[in-house]
Amino acid sequence: MSLQFEILHQSPSTQARVGRITTPHGVFDTPAFMPVGTRAAIKGLLPSLVAETGSQTILANTYHLMLRPGADLVERRGGLHTFMNWPGPILTDSGGYQVYSMADLNKMTDEGVRFRSVIDGAMIDLTPERSIEVQHQLGADIIMAFDDCPPSVDPVNFNETRKRLSAQRQSSFAKNYDHDKRLEVANERTIRWLERCDETHRTSGRADRQALFGIVQGGADLARRSWSAERVCSVELPGYAIGGVAVGEGFRDILRVVDHTAPLLPREKPRYLMGVGYERDLVAASRAGCDMFDCVLPTRNGRNANAFTPTGPIRLKNARFAEDDGPIDESCDCPACRGFSRAYLRHLFLAEEMLGPILCSLHNVRHFQRLMLDIRDTIREDNWSAFIRRWPVASEGCLGPDDPGARDADVGHARPA
Amino acid sequence: MSLQFEILHQSPSTQARVGRITTPHGVFDTPAFMPVGTRAAIKGLLPSLVAETGSQTILANTYHLMLRPGADLVERRGGLHTFMNWPGPILTDSGGYQVYSMADLNKMTDEGVRFRSVIDGAMIDLTPERSIEVQHQLGADIIMAFDDCPPSVDPVNFNETRKRLSAQRQSSFAKNYDHDKRLEVANERTIRWLERCDETHRTSGRADRQALFGIVQGGADLARRSWSAERVCSVELPGYAIGGVAVGEGFRDILRVVDHTAPLLPREKPRYLMGVGYERDLVAASRAGCDMFDCVLPTRNGRNANAFTPTGPIRLKNARFAEDDGPIDESCDCPACRGFSRAYLRHLFLAEEMLGPILCSLHNVRHFQRLMLDIRDTIREDNWSAFIRRWPVASEGCLGPDDPGARDADVGHARPA
Repeated sequence: MSLQFEILHQSPSTQARVGRITTPHGVFDTPAFMPVGTRAAIKGLLPSLVAETGSQTILANTYHLMLRPGADLVERRGGLHTFMNWPGPILTDSGGYQVYSMADLNKMTDEGVRFRSVIDGAMIDLTPERSIEVQHQLGADIIMAFDDCPPSVDPVNFNETRKRLSAQRQSSFAKNYDHDKRLEVANERTIRWLERCDETHRTSGRADRQALFGIVQGGADLARRSWSAERVCSVELPGYAIGGVAVGEGFRDILRVVDHTAPLLPREKPRYLMGVGYERDLVAASRAGCDMFDCVLPTRNGRNANAFTPTGPIRLKNARFAEDDGPIDESCDCPACRGFSRAYLRHLFLAEEMLGPILCSLHNVRHFQRLMLDIRDTIREDNWSAFIRRWPVASEGCLGPDDPGARDADVGHARPA
Repeated sequence: MSLQFEILHQSPSTQARVGRITTPHGVFDTPAFMPVGTRAAIKGLLPSLVAETGSQTILANTYHLMLRPGADLVERRGGLHTFMNWPGPILTDSGGYQVYSMADLNKMTDEGVRFRSVIDGAMIDLTPERSIEVQHQLGADIIMAFDDCPPSVDPVNFNETRKRLSAQRQSSFAKNYDHDKRLEVANERTIRWLERCDETHRTSGRADRQALFGIVQGGADLARRSWSAERVCSVELPGYAIGGVAVGEGFRDILRVVDHTAPLLPREKPRYLMGVGYERDLVAASRAGCDMFDCVLPTRNGRNANAFTPTGPIRLKNARFAEDDGPIDESCDCPACRGFSRAYLRHLFLAEEMLGPILCSLHNVRHFQRLMLDIRDTIREDNWSAFIRRWPVASEGCLGPDDPGARDADVGHARPA
C-alpha cells in the first residue's frame, strides 16, 4: 500500500481527528498544512528552512512543471524529491484547477483539455491519462485525479469571480453561461475522468509508490456534493479530496460545503480540502473532519509584506512600524521573529531587499504550522475555548455555518493560478 | 584601542601576511573578504547563512543607509549590528565613493558634497564631519574617512569608464575634463578631508569603539599614490585603505597600483583594498600585503545566474546545464552545491524563482570565503604553485605586474553605486 492513515485521536465534540499519514518518503501529522511549491520551489525558502517551520509535506503543481522544465526532464533528474531536494512527502495536483483558472486558453471536451503553453505557445493536450502519466514522472507520494473544476458559485452573479474576467469576456460569458448546467456537466465529467485516472494508475505499476486521491466536486450545491461524494467514493482509493472550494466564495459558503461534504467521505481515509485557506477556514475544516490543506497564502502574502499574527494580519510597509522594535509576533519562535524587528522588516520591504519577502514568508509558513500544531493539540484536549483565546484571528472557524456570528467575508482565491 | 591587528605569519617569498583583527564585535582572520550589505542586508541571504559561508565581517554603505531608513532611525534601533542582526564586525564606507559614482547629482567643493536624495529628492550635504557623524550613528566597528574618489584612469580616454556616461555628458565631460588636474585636486582634498574626519572622530568619544581608517588616493599615477600614502599615513590611525582602484581599469593597472602602494602603508596596520574584486585580484593583492577586501561580485553575479568556480565562472541559464545533475562546483561544500544540481538551478532562474538568486549568491559568497581560506593557508605554507592548481581562475594573480602573462582584461566595476 502506497499510503497509510492512522487516526490517533477522535474529537468527542466535533468531527475533528488527529492522525498520521505514512508515505514512501516519510510521515506527516494531520490535520496537516502543505506549503505550495508551485514550480518545485517554496518561493524564497531553502528546503531546510521549510522543514524548520514544521512543514512535513509540500505541494507542487503539475500544470506549471509539465510546461517548465517538463515532466520528462524532472523524471530524468530522479523525480521531484531529488530535483528540488525535498526528501519528505510531496503531493502534486492534477493540473485541472489551473486549466480551469486559465479557461480563456483552452477547449474542454469529454476527452480532456487543450490549451496553449504560456511558455512557448505550443498546443498542449491534457487528459486524465496524461495528467496521471505526468504525475508518475514527477513522482510525488500523493497524486490527484484530473477533475473538471468550475466556479463553486455562479460567476455571473458573483462579482469576486467575474471581476477576474476581461469586460469583453464577462459579457459573452454572462450571455452563454448556465451555472447549473455547468456544475452538472463538471460533476459527471469528473466521475468519468476519475475512472480513467484510476485505470491508468492501477495498470501503471506505480500504485505501490504513489497514492491517487479522488476529488469531489459539485460547487455550492449540496445535493450535487452528495451525488459527487457518493460516486467518487465508489472508486476505492487511499484518500479523497474536496475540490472546487475557495474559488471566490466567502467563509460561510466554504464552511457550508465542507460541513456537508466531509462526513460523506470515508472516515478511515484522509480527507484533503484543496486550496484552503485562512486560519478560520483551516480551523473550521479541521473541526469538520478534514485532514489535509494547502494554500499559497503564507508565501504570497509574505512576498507582499503581509504578515500573519494570531490577532490578524499586519502590513509591514505601514508607517506605524517604522520605529517598532518588536517582532512580527511576540509569541512566534521563527527566525524572523527571533532576530528581526518590524522596523527592520519595513526597511527591507521599502528598500526592495529580497530578504524582506524571505523573512516574511518564513514567518508566515511557521505561523500556519504553529496553528496546525495547536489545532492537533486542541483536538486531543478538546479545549476549543482555550484555542480561541490563543488564536482570536481564527475564532470564526469555531462557529457552525448557521451560526449568526459567521459573517460572510471575502476569502480571496488562495491557490496558484 | 578600538581595533587590534596581529600578524600571525609573514610570507617569506611575498609581502603577504596572515593576521587577525579584533574589534568590539569579534575577531576576523586576514586576508579577509567582506560581503557587501549595501542597505543593511546581504542581498537574499539570512545573516545566519552569511555566517555559515565563513564570512566573519561584512560591509554596509553609509550613503544608502543615510538616505533610507536614515542614520537617526538606525541609531535609535541600537545601531547596525542590532538592526540587521549581524553580531559580528561591520565596516561602513564613508559615502565618498557613491557620491563620486553619482557625480551627475552633486556639487563638490572643499567643504563637501551636495546631492539630491534619490529617495525623495531632498538636497543633502555630505561633509567629512557629517560622514563621520553618520557612521557614528550606524555604529560599525570600522569606519572610513570621507574621500574624494575620482576615476583612477583618464575617463576621457578610457572607454570602460566613459561608456557609463550619457552621450551628452560624455561630450561636455571630455571638453572640460583635465584628468591630471582632477587627480591632483582629489589627492589634496582627500588629505584635508581626512584631517577633518580624524578631528571629528577623535573628539567624539567614540574612538574606543570604532576604528577610523584613512584612504590613499592618486589614481593610476604612482607618484601621486606615493604622495598620498605619505600624507595619509602621517595621520595616526588604526588602519589604512587603498581607494580609487577597480573603478574601470584592468587587472594589470590594479596590480601595478596595489604593488606600488601597499608597501607604503605601515606594516603593522591592516591594509584594506576597497571594492576589489575578482579572484585573481584578491590573490595578487594578498601577495602584495593587503589584508581586507570587499566586493559586490558574489551577490550581484549570483542574482544574475553567474556562478563562480575555481576554473572560472559559469552562466547557470545556459542550455548546456538543462540536464546537468552535477553541482555548481564539485569541490564546494556550500548548501547550494550539496543539495542542488545545475539543472535545478537553471530551472529556478528560468522560472524566475527567488530561490535561484538565493542559492547562487550563497554559493558565490562561500566560493570567495573558500578562496580566502586557501589564500591564508597558502601564505602559511608558502606554496603558491599548489594554490594555482586548485584555483586556476586566480592564476594571473600570482604574476607580477610586469610579467608578460598578466594581460589586461575588463575587470568591471565591483562596488555598489
